[in-house]
Amino acid sequence: MIEVALDYLAMGIDPAKSTICLQSHLPALAELSMLYLNFVTVAQLERNPTIKDEIRMRGFGRNVPAGFLCYPAAQAADITAFKATRVPVGADQAPPIEQTNEIVRRINAAAGAAILPEAEAIIPKSGRLPGVDGKAKMSKSGGNAIALSASPEAISAAVRAMFTDPGHLRVEDPGEVEGNVVFTYLDAFDEDQHTVAGLKAQYRRGGLGDAVLKRRLEDILQALIAPIRQRWEDFAKHPDYVLDVIRAGTQKARARTEATKREVVEGLGLFTL
Amino acid sequence: MIEVALDYLAMGIDPAKSTICLQSHLPALAELSMLYLNFVTVAQLERNPTIKDEIRMRGFGRNVPAGFLCYPAAQAADITAFKATRVPVGADQAPPIEQTNEIVRRINAAAGAAILPEAEAIIPKSGRLPGVDGKAKMSKSGGNAIALSASPEAISAAVRAMFTDPGHLRVEDPGEVEGNVVFTYLDAFDEDQHTVAGLKAQYRRGGLGDAVLKRRLEDILQALIAPIRQRWEDFAKHPDYVLDVIRAGTQKARARTEATKREVVEGLGLFTL
Repeated sequence: MIEVALDYLAMGIDPAKSTICLQSHLPALAELSMLYLNFVTVAQLERNPTIKDEIRMRGFGRNVPAGFLCYPAAQAADITAFKATRVPVGADQAPPIEQTNEIVRRINAAAGAAILPEAEAIIPKSGRLPGVDGKAKMSKSGGNAIALSASPEAISAAVRAMFTDPGHLRVEDPGEVEGNVVFTYLDAFDEDQHTVAGLKAQYRRGGLGDAVLKRRLEDILQALIAPIRQRWEDFAKHPDYVLDVIRAGTQKARARTEATKREVVEGLGLFTL
Repeated sequence: MIEVALDYLAMGIDPAKSTICLQSHLPALAELSMLYLNFVTVAQLERNPTIKDEIRMRGFGRNVPAGFLCYPAAQAADITAFKATRVPVGADQAPPIEQTNEIVRRINAAAGAAILPEAEAIIPKSGRLPGVDGKAKMSKSGGNAIALSASPEAISAAVRAMFTDPGHLRVEDPGEVEGNVVFTYLDAFDEDQHTVAGLKAQYRRGGLGDAVLKRRLEDILQALIAPIRQRWEDFAKHPDYVLDVIRAGTQKARARTEATKREVVEGLGLFTL
């Protein structure tokens, strides 16, 4: 957990503007989740394409843990407890956000008042980055990730090892741009997309070597990560500060989520002491 | 809610010995429920005969609310948060208690320690009383119930209207004991079961009128309910006292349930601040 907060801070998220909190220490989220489970049917949860895909991918079949199937209700609680209206997520998370909005509409209908706002998924144009080996997903355990705290040497090594077009053997050969991780990263991080378009055309025609492209990408990644790494190292030296940020954020989030829970419970006319 | 607590107090439950609390005001129960959902599969919940019957009875099909299917996890939280080892329930609630124990064993196995005790269902021998009209279930809205605060006249009227054997027209006719609500109530409340056995034999042979039986039952119910009604009326005059009992009990229960939640969370090695 502290590593996640460390990454947030290193990325430049300012705790004075953005609350960093520990979800498991916000009981109102569990209470809202349990309430929301009464506003969604098993069939609706099973139709959620994200959950459906994950159930298939993990080979759960009918032996899916109930908590897994019910995850969209927990997600609805995470979003609505803060009355979030914009939620930054990957493209695969659009259906759960839609499910959150269905729950929101049902709660508001039951309460006869617009207690909760609907939320909009904010999906970044670059999508999820593949691992440097071209495998679907970056992961620390998969050894195919570039950490936000990566050393200059680690960044060099990762870019050198990066998956390109295995059929592109000589500089003069034409090469594939699709599935070429170097281009995927250039799409995501190169601010000069006009030049990137030119490089893609040249690569497809032949006459552009991987080494030139990788040098360009490495420069961009070194420049991108240097200040992040610096902040990461600074914050890593002060774990107590990071914990204080989480504690203060959790405290603040607790007040906010409790207030929303009270509104929902009262809106639904449930008994309160 | 206050009516339920009023009934408890009227029945003679002593708040100094038994904690009366408001479940919805114990967030640790929702937190434990959400945790437990990860220790039970959808298939296991669907196999629960109590839930299965209810889903069929209510005609839910696949459109069962998720909260309904997940109810056994919430019940497991209600039981285990207090580390209850004996749970008084109707016969139909034996499978959910078994499901609670399955969750308990999985939590303890995951924690590598006996954090939670298993519970035993305590099932009363008389089972659930039918309504005075012989319909399956007593309910206030069904108008077939005898309230704990029923007036002597209401008790008389209820016993007079009580379903017996519709084929038992004349005193000398043989009558049915099974399904005869008067006998069901005598089984439950008459302390002289030897005499009840004799009355059943005589009723089956013929020669025992409903009026005699009903008079016997009415005397028993009047004697049973009189002190309950008296206490009910006394407590009903002091709703603030009843609310104080609930508040104090909920406060006490909160400390207890939070402590159990902490033990489970720490036992499972989850991150805490």
